[in-house]
Amino acid sequence: MVATVNYNALGFKDILVTLHGPVLIITINRPEQKNTFGGVIHEDLIQAFETADQDDRVRAVILTADTTAFAYCPGRDTETGIEHIAVPAPDAEVAHRDEGGQVAIAIYNCRKLTIAAINGHAIGVGATGLQLPFDFRFIWEGAKVGFPFVRLGISPESASTYLLPRLIGLSRANSLLMTGATVKPTSPSYFALDVAKYTPQLSVTYTKALLRHPGESIEESHLRDSRSIKLLGIGHDATEHNIAFRERRDPNFTDSITKDLSLWYPWWRAPDVRYKTKL
Amino acid sequence: MVATVNYNALGFKDILVTLHGPVLIITINRPEQKNTFGGVIHEDLIQAFETADQDDRVRAVILTADTTAFAYCPGRDTETGIEHIAVPAPDAEVAHRDEGGQVAIAIYNCRKLTIAAINGHAIGVGATGLQLPFDFRFIWEGAKVGFPFVRLGISPESASTYLLPRLIGLSRANSLLMTGATVKPTSPSYFALDVAKYTPQLSVTYTKALLRHPGESIEESHLRDSRSIKLLGIGHDATEHNIAFRERRDPNFTDSITKDLSLWYPWWRAPDVRYKTKL
Amino acid sequence: MVATVNYNALGFKDILVTLHGPVLIITINRPEQKNTFGGVIHEDLIQAFETADQDDRVRAVILTADTTAFAYCPGRDTETGIEHIAVPAPDAEVAHRDEGGQVAIAIYNCRKLTIAAINGHAIGVGATGLQLPFDFRFIWEGAKVGFPFVRLGISPESASTYLLPRLIGLSRANSLLMTGATVKPTSPSYFALDVAKYTPQLSVTYTKALLRHPGESIEESHLRDSRSIKLLGIGHDATEHNIAFRERRDPNFTDSITKDLSLWYPWWRAPDVRYKTKL
Repeated sequence: MVATVNYNALGFKDILVTLHGPVLIITINRPEQKNTFGGVIHEDLIQAFETADQDDRVRAVILTADTTAFAYCPGRDTETGIEHIAVPAPDAEVAHRDEGGQVAIAIYNCRKLTIAAINGHAIGVGATGLQLPFDFRFIWEGAKVGFPFVRLGISPESASTYLLPRLIGLSRANSLLMTGATVKPTSPSYFALDVAKYTPQLSVTYTKALLRHPGESIEESHLRDSRSIKLLGIGHDATEHNIAFRERRDPNFTDSITKDLSLWYPWWRAPDVRYKTKL
Repeated sequence: MVATVNYNALGFKDILVTLHGPVLIITINRPEQKNTFGGVIHEDLIQAFETADQDDRVRAVILTADTTAFAYCPGRDTETGIEHIAVPAPDAEVAHRDEGGQVAIAIYNCRKLTIAAINGHAIGVGATGLQLPFDFRFIWEGAKVGFPFVRLGISPESASTYLLPRLIGLSRANSLLMTGATVKPTSPSYFALDVAKYTPQLSVTYTKALLRHPGESIEESHLRDSRSIKLLGIGHDATEHNIAFRERRDPNFTDSITKDLSLWYPWWRAPDVRYKTKL
Repeated sequence: MVATVNYNALGFKDILVTLHGPVLIITINRPEQKNTFGGVIHEDLIQAFETADQDDRVRAVILTADTTAFAYCPGRDTETGIEHIAVPAPDAEVAHRDEGGQVAIAIYNCRKLTIAAINGHAIGVGATGLQLPFDFRFIWEGAKVGFPFVRLGISPESASTYLLPRLIGLSRANSLLMTGATVKPTSPSYFALDVAKYTPQLSVTYTKALLRHPGESIEESHLRDSRSIKLLGIGHDATEHNIAFRERRDPNFTDSITKDLSLWYPWWRAPDVRYKTKL
């Protein structure tokens, strides 16, 4: 148990942490990296929220971002500026645990009131792990909030397929997480062609399944989307997306359900409706 | 596994199926029957969506309707133009499985992006089975979307009591499924008199229960609403509704909870809150 | 089984009950107590809804309030005019069962169509137990609806943490139940300071937990929020709130997570995400 904490002594590198009376203000402070999710930010954030949970002086926590970057958090820090994941080798001793999900769990399980003050663009993990597990969200007008995962050959992470449908309903969560788009479609044909071209088949398959069977808790959801993003991250289409992005050409997605789906899928069971059953 | 499919060779009768690049377009094609749900349309749709699920070329599926009928799907095909169900005899070897629900499961379990392009009126199974299991819905302005089940002496089907609350929340789902109305009430007294007169008691009872205890999956929900609609379909009030409709008079609903409720109800269990319990 | 009922013979004291054709109208009738939740109103309401459930003549039930009080139900009846609970002694033979929750369960389990005609202010149990378990809500313009629990040192009751997220989604339910505020915040800093000052830490902790782990049914939720409100009601901060309110000063909340949390918390289990697991 921690009665009082000297937050400066905790040695944060990518965030600033200050206690204003009963309010702990955590500021993402990576202006040179445009506040991307990288460096040791995930360790810093987990430590900050776990400490806030234990520090009796803290009654509310605000997460916001340094304003010189004009971004709350525009996603992971990669050379291409897009989402990217680092996964352990298939035979590694440890299982892959998505870093955004680890942060999301620390925020979600913090027992103080938590507030996301989204004062700039929030993309990828900035829109999932750093937005959805909070009790309250304030979003600046003009801030762009995007969930591009399905277009990158991966799937949504940070337990977003668990949290977003509960927050705003499955209909709107579908629209945000399954399309990866930031524009509103004007006709079903145009919309279908767009998503058919830019969303790899396996990304769609896993994302649909995660939205419908995320698990019973944020932890279960984290385990499932970690495995999904790992499987997709080592596949052809995620790599193809990154190469195509660098070469400024349209991607050529070739992974398919019939050839490339993991045996892990489906991870849930459904009753067989063909036979007489007890209800 | 099916690599490529010649959709024409599958011999569909009530739908047209064409592959436009990566987009499979399925068109309800029963203009002489005003696109009602009848003939072999449920078999056609199940086959089309199950094949699309397996065909690697397909990345998105659109369901829409032939436009000469001015309707997407106005419900089941009956002589009265209203919802009607055919159920097996009570001692039949097979259990009743609602056809709309079978279609809904095939659409819901299709692992490609699915889009309902609702280009006309959608009533009954047209508003449930052919709308709710899709990932995305486009609805034409002017298209009427109605859920009349509870006024017909039956209960909502096609897993709609499972899907609709998840899509848009229980408050709005209640309003749509428990009233069967298409108009907005202006006072509680008027509203109460209207629903009291036109919604049979057992239909309300089953519909409320299905909304609150639909089951943990679309399949469980399908099993439960199939049983509910079968029990109601063979009752007095469903028949009375159809006769009254034909005779253009108000129905006289007489089935009651104290005399006519099935032993199947309630199908769930709740803890007894009167005693000290472990939590 | 009850075929017909003479409602006058049931001897209600705090409500009026009249049958208008198929519609049972229940009117909260405590004008001298401004329609507060007190006297024997909870017994009257439970009996009325349980009888309506069994009376075949009743097809819809309206709950409304006597209009001379200008309130639908402004909360519990206490000398201070604010929420208050009476709990059994810690060594009592019976467990605490929140009265609002008992009423909520009777309304929720009534198998007729239920309508809340909220013709005046609804605060506390008036906004939870007498609003959320109904199938439909009509709310008069100008009626104030408030959920102040978390500011009173207790937690939301009447299964509201189960019902409200299902009705309107977790995002809006969070805003209503976790802040206890009736005004909209304009900045995150102002908002954080306000909630940090006026919402006791343990109230926030239990309320967050109840919103996320309410249980699988209204009954489970009732058991959990009854225990939560009992534990909080005998704590320092609930008493401090009442004293400060009477003395017209700001409260000094001192209960803390590290020192005053019950061993009952947490009442749920989550998988440990650090280790390799089967999914």
